[in-house]
Amino acid sequence: MADSPQPINLFEFEDAAREVLPKAEYDYIAGGATDEISVDRNRRAYASWAFRPRVLRDVSKLDLSTTVLGSKVALPVLIAPCGGHKRAHPDGELATYRAAASCGTAMAVSANANTSFEDLAKAADGMLWVQLYPFRDKAMTQDWLDRAQANGYKAIIVTLDSQWPPKRERNIRNRYQRTRGANYPVGGEHPDAPRPAGSGAGSDPAATWKDLEWIKAATRLPVVAKGIMTGEDVELCAQVGADGVIVSNHGGRHLDNTLATVEVLSEAVAAAKGKMEVYLDGGIRRGADVVKAIALGAKAVFIGRPLFWGLAVGGEQGVVRVLNLLREEIEITMAKCGRPTIASIDASAIVRVPPL
Amino acid sequence: MADSPQPINLFEFEDAAREVLPKAEYDYIAGGATDEISVDRNRRAYASWAFRPRVLRDVSKLDLSTTVLGSKVALPVLIAPCGGHKRAHPDGELATYRAAASCGTAMAVSANANTSFEDLAKAADGMLWVQLYPFRDKAMTQDWLDRAQANGYKAIIVTLDSQWPPKRERNIRNRYQRTRGANYPVGGEHPDAPRPAGSGAGSDPAATWKDLEWIKAATRLPVVAKGIMTGEDVELCAQVGADGVIVSNHGGRHLDNTLATVEVLSEAVAAAKGKMEVYLDGGIRRGADVVKAIALGAKAVFIGRPLFWGLAVGGEQGVVRVLNLLREEIEITMAKCGRPTIASIDASAIVRVPPL
Amino acid sequence: MADSPQPINLFEFEDAAREVLPKAEYDYIAGGATDEISVDRNRRAYASWAFRPRVLRDVSKLDLSTTVLGSKVALPVLIAPCGGHKRAHPDGELATYRAAASCGTAMAVSANANTSFEDLAKAADGMLWVQLYPFRDKAMTQDWLDRAQANGYKAIIVTLDSQWPPKRERNIRNRYQRTRGANYPVGGEHPDAPRPAGSGAGSDPAATWKDLEWIKAATRLPVVAKGIMTGEDVELCAQVGADGVIVSNHGGRHLDNTLATVEVLSEAVAAAKGKMEVYLDGGIRRGADVVKAIALGAKAVFIGRPLFWGLAVGGEQGVVRVLNLLREEIEITMAKCGRPTIASIDASAIVRVPPL
Amino acid sequence: MADSPQPINLFEFEDAAREVLPKAEYDYIAGGATDEISVDRNRRAYASWAFRPRVLRDVSKLDLSTTVLGSKVALPVLIAPCGGHKRAHPDGELATYRAAASCGTAMAVSANANTSFEDLAKAADGMLWVQLYPFRDKAMTQDWLDRAQANGYKAIIVTLDSQWPPKRERNIRNRYQRTRGANYPVGGEHPDAPRPAGSGAGSDPAATWKDLEWIKAATRLPVVAKGIMTGEDVELCAQVGADGVIVSNHGGRHLDNTLATVEVLSEAVAAAKGKMEVYLDGGIRRGADVVKAIALGAKAVFIGRPLFWGLAVGGEQGVVRVLNLLREEIEITMAKCGRPTIASIDASAIVRVPPL
Repeated sequence: MADSPQPINLFEFEDAAREVLPKAEYDYIAGGATDEISVDRNRRAYASWAFRPRVLRDVSKLDLSTTVLGSKVALPVLIAPCGGHKRAHPDGELATYRAAASCGTAMAVSANANTSFEDLAKAADGMLWVQLYPFRDKAMTQDWLDRAQANGYKAIIVTLDSQWPPKRERNIRNRYQRTRGANYPVGGEHPDAPRPAGSGAGSDPAATWKDLEWIKAATRLPVVAKGIMTGEDVELCAQVGADGVIVSNHGGRHLDNTLATVEVLSEAVAAAKGKMEVYLDGGIRRGADVVKAIALGAKAVFIGRPLFWGLAVGGEQGVVRVLNLLREEIEITMAKCGRPTIASIDASAIVRVPPL
Repeated sequence: MADSPQPINLFEFEDAAREVLPKAEYDYIAGGATDEISVDRNRRAYASWAFRPRVLRDVSKLDLSTTVLGSKVALPVLIAPCGGHKRAHPDGELATYRAAASCGTAMAVSANANTSFEDLAKAADGMLWVQLYPFRDKAMTQDWLDRAQANGYKAIIVTLDSQWPPKRERNIRNRYQRTRGANYPVGGEHPDAPRPAGSGAGSDPAATWKDLEWIKAATRLPVVAKGIMTGEDVELCAQVGADGVIVSNHGGRHLDNTLATVEVLSEAVAAAKGKMEVYLDGGIRRGADVVKAIALGAKAVFIGRPLFWGLAVGGEQGVVRVLNLLREEIEITMAKCGRPTIASIDASAIVRVPPL
Repeated sequence: MADSPQPINLFEFEDAAREVLPKAEYDYIAGGATDEISVDRNRRAYASWAFRPRVLRDVSKLDLSTTVLGSKVALPVLIAPCGGHKRAHPDGELATYRAAASCGTAMAVSANANTSFEDLAKAADGMLWVQLYPFRDKAMTQDWLDRAQANGYKAIIVTLDSQWPPKRERNIRNRYQRTRGANYPVGGEHPDAPRPAGSGAGSDPAATWKDLEWIKAATRLPVVAKGIMTGEDVELCAQVGADGVIVSNHGGRHLDNTLATVEVLSEAVAAAKGKMEVYLDGGIRRGADVVKAIALGAKAVFIGRPLFWGLAVGGEQGVVRVLNLLREEIEITMAKCGRPTIASIDASAIVRVPPL
Repeated sequence: MADSPQPINLFEFEDAAREVLPKAEYDYIAGGATDEISVDRNRRAYASWAFRPRVLRDVSKLDLSTTVLGSKVALPVLIAPCGGHKRAHPDGELATYRAAASCGTAMAVSANANTSFEDLAKAADGMLWVQLYPFRDKAMTQDWLDRAQANGYKAIIVTLDSQWPPKRERNIRNRYQRTRGANYPVGGEHPDAPRPAGSGAGSDPAATWKDLEWIKAATRLPVVAKGIMTGEDVELCAQVGADGVIVSNHGGRHLDNTLATVEVLSEAVAAAKGKMEVYLDGGIRRGADVVKAIALGAKAVFIGRPLFWGLAVGGEQGVVRVLNLLREEIEITMAKCGRPTIASIDASAIVRVPPL
């Protein structure tokens, strides 16, 4: 990063990361299920909305801060729960967390993190959430919930779209082997590689809404359901008392041939009826994407792949730069749309783009 | 197949088959009528529907079995009637049938098969259907119907879209010569190369609905009409007592410039009013395509070109692998959509994709 | 044409013609106005309609004949009026006419033909129409109308879209110089290169509907207006007593940025209210295009560029082959759609194609 | 320009300019904000409308003249306010103004012009408008308004979309440094590079509609608001007494991900309710684009980038040729659409193009 010019946007970050990462790791990060149609659509669908610029509205004082589950963040971009940050940089999750904290935003720690919940909590003075699956192993689940609460984590994300192993063809071709997360008991399975006949720690294919209810009852922390792509499931989340949902197709990494997350957002927001916060991940590469998601009703968005690119290119400082690039682009967009605060970004800021 | 890595999807199967097949045979299999617009659209149209993933619905026990005309198959993917399997592998139809039987599904035997109906019936303990045309030669037709019944075949497919020879430009350029099917009487014509002024065994351009009624009356086996692309013709099939229809444009090999079969499916299903089973062929390459077709009302689908790729790459085992790849992809799709049985796959599993 | 294989479709004819024609002549034939958007759209718009194949309708006896202005033609494809056939072959219009006559169809002779109306009439025993512009020079106009009638021509086409010279950039780059038509008086202007301040033989930019009325009154032959692209102008044609209209944008050679002619056809047919025959030219390359135009209400279609490709590749026999290729493709399409006669090709034979 | 053939359209002008301009200058002119989606869409969106050609309407006398704010121009194409014409040619704004004057149209002088308002006014006998921003510095604003009026300028354009610096990635990569405009007081800031915490001459991010009211009150010249992209802002312009609006997204150079200006035009025209003139800039490259904009309700259009190409290729004569090419193409379009005057170009001249 010292000699070559710094990436000036997230696409250049991806290019730079591709240069330094082993191909199999780059592919693991970049890849998606089967034909990667959903990976591609997640990104391209943002182009379906255009901004409606507004003028003469005093944008001299922009405020990008908002709240997530009642806690303030400096910008509406959070770090998604992604396994194994050490694949991109030896500092792993520690670097990411320090970057997030220094930028005033929250990081969600993956069930498959390379770092223990406890070590991570000590690394900075920011905001942490923890992510888990509806595990078969309820004892381990309770242990994680307790450890999260004891270490000051602010929320629980339950990832619901990993009930069956996906077909990621890049990984198959690369014979890619993942390492186990640091927080599992020794001898447990890979949580995101469940098998129907398996047992133990994996995401349970037999899980039902009762399992999410169990988690909600087992912790005092707010619970956010991740991997929701329909209004029906948003309503079911509300019925079991979830505090939020993340509209997500797992970055196109589990089921291919879905709509883009941003295309599902309005349906999800409508179904939430204001009772739960609705977040989004998938394809965020520009500040413009963030503003569009907020205009469509998202409380905040999460980034996944870009944090790996930041790590690969520059460790903690790389992630800081990724977040700052998004912040600067959000500022421009807010100013040009005449929206000085996050709360002022509503549906009138955008318009559906007609096909050309 | 021994040295190079196994194909991991049907596209790789096609690539591998292209390597081993003579160009003229590859082209015969791949090609379609004139500009091959329908070949292309059959495939691409699946992208017009997206899945609506569902969570927490207990997908630990997936059941892919269904019934076709009352008989159970282990998965909703059948082998379409395609002429001359020996063009892809010396074992020809025997290999295909054994593969189908070992995977628990049915094979439809083409009028132009390289193997006699009798020899094929002895090769495995699976389910066979036979395909014919509305031949001019009623005596031969009756003979085939009787032989099929005597040899335990379960259904008759009557292909209706071959009343006039198509223009397949790859074949014209390659000066491609087809061999005659093994089941025709010596000296008969090519059944799928009829001429208006011709006579004998060919698909009769003068055929009308009375000819289909004649076939229905001439056998106790169920009769399925293949090559149907409109609701009007579905209704006429019902009126003459057909037991099922296959929505098919012959893989884009007869009339170019049609809609994709999957685009016609809803119209056909509505017209069938639940009185006949509706199947589909055309462009199936992924398990996702199968699930979409079922969500739109198909009872099952047929594959054509992929069986030749399987044969070319690995004979019987190649076809087994083709079927298993589809089965695994169907499983993932069903699990991720929260649909543990074929019957649970309904229209709410999909949504029309807006153009980007 | 002797050594290399014969073109098997009109695209191959174009490729073969490009090989033998001087670049400037090829470009003159191929090119259109400014960005050639209309040239491209004329062709591509046919893909907006798909066929609805029908089965079991007795297509053993296909009849492609129809009538134009009351005279029978063997197929619904006529030769459009195109200037200077000698640019493609030394036999020029004589070869084209002989080909049209031997195929049983009509040829429209351009105002800019390289052959005199009289010489052409003697060359074969077919059907000729003549094309002219709303000339400033009424004496010459009357002379042409009289010569056409005296020589057995069957109809007059008046081209109305050439009231102002177009911008054809290929010709500008090639410094292309056209030769004068053989039928103009010595010293007259180029009829299709009018200037507002010019005088004499050119298409008169000051022409109004009174000029078309004048032509109608000046001949007993039926009058067909060419270059019509709106329902309003169809109605005005009817008001002045025209016998037919040709929906045409001059092959995209005059005004760019129009709809395709096939997209305007329904509007034109509706406006004609059955009182005039409606023809179409523009982008016809396949028999399928002809059948689509007829299904949308065209009485017949005209081909322009393909006749030059036929001439360039094989003179009279090349044009015969172009027409025969279209005939064979029309036959296939009619048979597969279950439409044994031209009259049976109605709107139910096609369906609008949804965007993919 | 002497040796190589003259560009025959504006695309060739761009190509020729790219040859002679330093890359950083070419990029500065060509580039836009972030992904340049709006740059591209501005251009491509014209293809969403097609012409409806009309015949026999007497187009022998075409009149391209119209009025802007009550003053006559010979054609409905004006020179947009663009900074620093000397980057393309040493004669800079003097050359552009002489070209505009000789073609009978108006030039808007940028706040960042390389030439003083006074020097420019003396260079020709044409029509000048001046452009400024809602500056923080009201004294300088008053000075500019007074100088414009004293030097015979006819209107004031206030650019409203530059309240925040854009992200132009080509400039970042090229480390592009702009020079200051000739009309700013020594020591003032760059007007189009404002910073929230800055002070002085820059476009004030704190500006509100009161600032536009102030400008309107501070001059007797008509005031035109530039950078309007919504009906709401058109209405607000009317409320503060603006005399016109320019629908503009600054050539895609400020906020990316907007609709094309031509797509917003109808909304703007409707909101203006005939009380203000509505102009447009963005993507004009063909006379056809001009006619489409007028058919959608624009009073006239502005060109920006093409004037730099004209300057780069041939100085004053290059700009003359750019304007003449547009004029010739407008003439062809008007003639072929049967619209002999600007006033006769209404909505019936065009039709929305269906997607192919």
